[in-house]
Amino acid sequence: MHELYQQLLRYYQEMTDISRVLSVLHWDQSTYMPPGGTAARSRQTATLGRIFHEKATADELGKLLDDLKPYEESLPYDSDEASVIRVGRRNFEWATKVPADFMGRFYEHIGTSYQIWTQARPANDFEKIRPYLEKTLDFSREHSAFYPELDHPADARISRWNYGMTVATIQPLFAELRRHLVPLVEAIRQQPPPRTDFLHRHYPEADQERFGLMVIEKYGYDLNRGRQDRTHHPFCTKFSIGDVRITTRFREDDVSDALFSTLHEAGHGMYEQGINPAYEGTPLDRGTSAGVHESQSRLWENVVGRSREFWTHFFPKLKAVFPEQLHDVDTGQFYRAINKVEPSLIRVDADEVTYNLHVMIRFDLANEMLENKLAVKDLPEAWNARYTSDLGITPPHDKDGCMQDVHWFHGMIGGSFPGYTLGNILSGQFFEAALNAHPGIPSEIEKGQFEILHGWLKENIYQHGSKYTAPELIERVTGKSMTIEPYMTYLKTKYGELYEL
Amino acid sequence: MHELYQQLLRYYQEMTDISRVLSVLHWDQSTYMPPGGTAARSRQTATLGRIFHEKATADELGKLLDDLKPYEESLPYDSDEASVIRVGRRNFEWATKVPADFMGRFYEHIGTSYQIWTQARPANDFEKIRPYLEKTLDFSREHSAFYPELDHPADARISRWNYGMTVATIQPLFAELRRHLVPLVEAIRQQPPPRTDFLHRHYPEADQERFGLMVIEKYGYDLNRGRQDRTHHPFCTKFSIGDVRITTRFREDDVSDALFSTLHEAGHGMYEQGINPAYEGTPLDRGTSAGVHESQSRLWENVVGRSREFWTHFFPKLKAVFPEQLHDVDTGQFYRAINKVEPSLIRVDADEVTYNLHVMIRFDLANEMLENKLAVKDLPEAWNARYTSDLGITPPHDKDGCMQDVHWFHGMIGGSFPGYTLGNILSGQFFEAALNAHPGIPSEIEKGQFEILHGWLKENIYQHGSKYTAPELIERVTGKSMTIEPYMTYLKTKYGELYEL
Repeated sequence: MHELYQQLLRYYQEMTDISRVLSVLHWDQSTYMPPGGTAARSRQTATLGRIFHEKATADELGKLLDDLKPYEESLPYDSDEASVIRVGRRNFEWATKVPADFMGRFYEHIGTSYQIWTQARPANDFEKIRPYLEKTLDFSREHSAFYPELDHPADARISRWNYGMTVATIQPLFAELRRHLVPLVEAIRQQPPPRTDFLHRHYPEADQERFGLMVIEKYGYDLNRGRQDRTHHPFCTKFSIGDVRITTRFREDDVSDALFSTLHEAGHGMYEQGINPAYEGTPLDRGTSAGVHESQSRLWENVVGRSREFWTHFFPKLKAVFPEQLHDVDTGQFYRAINKVEPSLIRVDADEVTYNLHVMIRFDLANEMLENKLAVKDLPEAWNARYTSDLGITPPHDKDGCMQDVHWFHGMIGGSFPGYTLGNILSGQFFEAALNAHPGIPSEIEKGQFEILHGWLKENIYQHGSKYTAPELIERVTGKSMTIEPYMTYLKTKYGELYEL
Repeated sequence: MHELYQQLLRYYQEMTDISRVLSVLHWDQSTYMPPGGTAARSRQTATLGRIFHEKATADELGKLLDDLKPYEESLPYDSDEASVIRVGRRNFEWATKVPADFMGRFYEHIGTSYQIWTQARPANDFEKIRPYLEKTLDFSREHSAFYPELDHPADARISRWNYGMTVATIQPLFAELRRHLVPLVEAIRQQPPPRTDFLHRHYPEADQERFGLMVIEKYGYDLNRGRQDRTHHPFCTKFSIGDVRITTRFREDDVSDALFSTLHEAGHGMYEQGINPAYEGTPLDRGTSAGVHESQSRLWENVVGRSREFWTHFFPKLKAVFPEQLHDVDTGQFYRAINKVEPSLIRVDADEVTYNLHVMIRFDLANEMLENKLAVKDLPEAWNARYTSDLGITPPHDKDGCMQDVHWFHGMIGGSFPGYTLGNILSGQFFEAALNAHPGIPSEIEKGQFEILHGWLKENIYQHGSKYTAPELIERVTGKSMTIEPYMTYLKTKYGELYEL
């Protein structure tokens, strides 16, 4: 192997080690750290973050990548070596394009903005946070200017987390999705809602935990290379391919909340556990984009985990764990309850169907603000109008309206939301491709078996890590570019049957 | 404040951050890391260790310390600034005195030695490990040669962990202690042993845990700035003054094992929690020596935790937690059981009295090997002879004889053991000083109150961190240099009464 390439691998191994250690610090902070540890932990994270940033932006790395250009060009595009250099260069350019001074000023601002938001939201005081949001918008536009090659002011952030995608490619898909979803939700609202009372009986935490772990082990999440802990906000984190952890939180008055969060995070976890071990310590050793990552969590949480086949197998098992709580419930009733569709104010509590409407409202409004078509002062009104037109409900106050999510108040505007709905769209598109290859998957699921599906995902998606961009991967796996059709067919079939539409 | 001094503080803050992060990695590895994480964690630890070592030995730091010499000399010896510079220089000299190349060769050797030991010990095969131990001895002597100013070949390691102490100062104390202990143990052996059967009934883990946490909170261990987790080998670790964690392990067939380990580690933890917060991020922000540290764990575990006063208060509470298991036991019986003295083969299982004999055997034999008075091949024989003469029992095999402890097989020889007995000696000397200042302490303990004792320790020992060396601190706190007298008086009084000697 090329001597310089060896040097690059060593460089990336050290960079990866440091970034994984940062993940350990964050995981510990979210799971077990006592309250007294906060101040020092922030400093430790900042110190290590600085060391990481220095390495990620060092001239030494830039020179290595430059010197390796001829080597890269001598190799096939999808060889491991060419891919490491290509993705490494993309990351390097991202890290060096924006002056450190700009990011320093932005982090300072956003720290204050977040503090203000934590006060303004409970006080339902949009005016208090407004000037900070305006400044965040200015920072976001200034940030976009470092990427003159991109068209839309949201593209800099979108392409960071979903490389190869832009407002121009996402917007038409989202618009089409919305055209289908709004009438679907409206039709569902005309139908009688399913019974859900039994979901909220008393379900002891330890039993919930055991059941969830049993399911994800069957999915293929490897507990020898992972574990689940408790946090306020569930997440998945990777310390190495041998140590990919997930977290969840339990509510004893809800049998499904923790379970679906576990299935969701296990989807992220299986993706990371399934990456080619040879990529460990290189820029390829992580999932390729926010959207593709979310497609895996959504696929295992919803497409599989909320399917009739899944519960045909698992409901009797759940009933065996909670015989008293579920004594008057059958599989069909349970299946309908966990798939109840109900427009609501809060994104994170939304069901599978309405969730996308929440996301697309945010995507559109962020773009309008960035395009100067919507002033921050008019955001609450625009927000409420969209909730009324898309979901048929009007937020009674900004607290649970445009101030509900932390994203715009603790980060730049544009880029953070679309990944959620891209994930849903892709979960449908990938699952359709898996079914085409293996039509027996649904009957496997009905037996509580997932080897074929997991194997197909590993073979076609997981193993590649970041080698392919999301658009390349989608084309490779499904033979076409991203399309909402399979996802809409999935939703219309499932909910058409559930609500007898 | 001096500009260069500010620079030094910033430098140390970053060094401290990195070393604390290394502690987080180690803690996670011992508590929660799944098996698959091992390989990557070793690499992450090595990467961060290398970054730490580079900072700890950088010319930049040496120059800063040199340039600050005049400033240091202009300040009182025990001013914070002079102390930071003084202790910082001591650490810097330690880190730079030994060539990195030598340490690299040593680490490579010791890795193999450890692997061989894990096989040789269960196989009871001393011959297999012998050549490695000989090489470790060579490395240890070579290491000593980097410190030509020290007299004895063990002094380099002893003074690292117990600065200001040497073989010459420790040997006479240990010899005197042994002269008292051997006949004391012999006399106890002539007496009938107390009943201990009830210690080994079934004690559920969760109840043991709650009881232990209740006690250490009363001690003054701050759970807002700490926590307890489970590990195979209990330890205490510090991520910051606001986050000092301890670990323990539970055996459900033993009511006292986990408890005393919790009390022990809480002693270490309270020391670290009690250091002056202004020292955070400087070389002063940790306990001053292995011996002084151990004096605090031993004081809270044994001098307080195994005292009659302690159990007068806590035994009724323990009995309330375990009413069935302890229904036929009274305070006196319980007190005698947890203070049973019985010569045994294994150091880590030894009681308060015989423990020191185990330690001193190792101290003496290590010195003899380093002095070339004892060949490695003759170690088993010498070991067994000392166990026979000091403890009255002869190891039937090397597995539980000279191969029982990992120390000589995973580190240099000389320096690792004496801290344990120094800690016991100092626990007696410090406790006597506390009693002289506050004669009411025993009756406070009888009420389950520890504020006066904890306050005195904090005021006199904890807060100073590493500002004073162990000998300086002992002199300052007790008005004399280290002496075995208070400790021997404590043992003779307590066990004389217990065994009616």
